[in-house]
Amino acid sequence: MSDLEARVRLLEDVEAVRQLVSAYGLAVDSGSAGATAALWTEDGTYDVVPQPLVGRAALTAMVDSEGHRSLIARGCAHVLGAPHVLLDGDRAVATCHSLVLLRDAERREHRVWRVAANRWELVRTVDGWQVSTRVNRLLDGSDDAAALLAAGLAGGPS
Amino acid sequence: MSDLEARVRLLEDVEAVRQLVSAYGLAVDSGSAGATAALWTEDGTYDVVPQPLVGRAALTAMVDSEGHRSLIARGCAHVLGAPHVLLDGDRAVATCHSLVLLRDAERREHRVWRVAANRWELVRTVDGWQVSTRVNRLLDGSDDAAALLAAGLAGGPS
Amino acid sequence: MSDLEARVRLLEDVEAVRQLVSAYGLAVDSGSAGATAALWTEDGTYDVVPQPLVGRAALTAMVDSEGHRSLIARGCAHVLGAPHVLLDGDRAVATCHSLVLLRDAERREHRVWRVAANRWELVRTVDGWQVSTRVNRLLDGSDDAAALLAAGLAGGPS
Repeated sequence: MSDLEARVRLLEDVEAVRQLVSAYGLAVDSGSAGATAALWTEDGTYDVVPQPLVGRAALTAMVDSEGHRSLIARGCAHVLGAPHVLLDGDRAVATCHSLVLLRDAERREHRVWRVAANRWELVRTVDGWQVSTRVNRLLDGSDDAAALLAAGLAGGPS
Repeated sequence: MSDLEARVRLLEDVEAVRQLVSAYGLAVDSGSAGATAALWTEDGTYDVVPQPLVGRAALTAMVDSEGHRSLIARGCAHVLGAPHVLLDGDRAVATCHSLVLLRDAERREHRVWRVAANRWELVRTVDGWQVSTRVNRLLDGSDDAAALLAAGLAGGPS
Repeated sequence: MSDLEARVRLLEDVEAVRQLVSAYGLAVDSGSAGATAALWTEDGTYDVVPQPLVGRAALTAMVDSEGHRSLIARGCAHVLGAPHVLLDGDRAVATCHSLVLLRDAERREHRVWRVAANRWELVRTVDGWQVSTRVNRLLDGSDDAAALLAAGLAGGPS
C-alpha cells in the first residue's frame, strides 16, 4: 500500500466510525431493532447503567421493549455529539456526549432527560467496522463519566 | 479515474454534504436569507409542517419573515445533529436530528422548543452539492418521523 | 505534491479541525486542564464574555478553577455542534453552536444553561493544528452572535 493510499484509508476509517455512531440515533428513535443490533459485533456489549446489554439479542430486545416503544410514542430523540476518534489499526475508540430528549406535552417542549459520556470501542471486521463495546455513563457529577471522557483524549488524562 | 481517486472523491462528497448541513444553522440563526436559500437548488423544497416551502424565493422569505426575525431577537439556535450520509453517485441522502432552542429570559435558560427528524436529499450540480429536498418531521411520537429516520439507514427500515 | 495528494491533504486538514473541536468537550467536562490548554497555541486566546482568557496558563486556570470544578460536580456537558470549516492554507476557521447543559437534580433533568455561537480560528503549527483564537458569544438576541455565525459562511454575510 502506498503512503498516499494509507492516508486515504485512515480517512475512510474515521469516516466509517462517524457513520456508525451517527446511525445509532436513527436506529433507536425509529425502533429499528435489527439495525441497532447490527451496529455491534455478534457478542458486542452496551455497558449502560443499571444493566449492561451483552450480545445482539439483548440489544434487539432493548429496542423492542415496551419501555423503549413508549419513549418513541411519547416523542424521543437520542442525539449523539460529534465523536472524537482515535484510530489504532483495526481498532478505534470514539468518545462523545449523548443527549436523550423527551417530549413534555404539557410544557410543549422537550426535556433534556439524560446527558451522558460515551466510549465506543470499535473493531474492523470482514463486514466493516462494528462496535465491540459501548460504555455510557451519566454526566451527573460522578467520577466515572469524567474518567471516560479523559480516556478518550489522544494523550489520555492530563 | 483511478481507484484511489475514486475513493478520495467519495470522501470529498461526504465532506461536502457535511458542510452543507452544518451551514444551515449558521445561515438561519444569523438571518442570512440569501445564504440559506443558496443551500438549495433553484426549485428546491423544504418540506416542513404545516407549510412546505418551494423554491429559493420561499426560503428567502421564510428567513426574512417577521416570525423568524423575532426568534433571532429572542435568542435562537438551530442545532443539527451529525448527519448519517448515504451516497449514490450524483445524489446523496443525509439524515439527522435537529433541535431548535429558544431563550426563555424568565427562566434564564433555553427551552428545547422543537426536536425533529430531517432527511436531506442532495444533488451534485455544476455549482457543487445542493439540497433538492429537505423533509422535517417533529419527533412527537408520530409515525412520520420514525419512518423518515429508518429510511436514512443504509439497509433501510429493519 | 500531486493534485491527488493535495486533495487528500485538504481532507486531512478538515478532519484535524473536527478532531480539535470535538476534543474540547471531552477535555473541559473531565477537568483535564492541560489537555484543554494544549488545544490552543501558547499565546492563544479564548474570547469569552465577560473576561477573555489569554495564553495557556489562563486556560489551565479556568479549568482548574473552583467555579469550573463545581460545574463538573453538579453534572455538566459542553456539547459542540458540527463545525462548518473554511480552510485557507495554514489557517482555518470553524464555526459552530455550543450548548452547556447543567444537571438540575430537583427537576431530574438537565437545563440548557448557555447556548452560544463559536468561531474557532486555527493555525497549522509544527505540532499540528492549534487554536489561535476562539470567540464565544451567547445566542441571546444580540447582534454579536449573529455576525459571528454569518462570518463563518463561505461567502460571508448575505
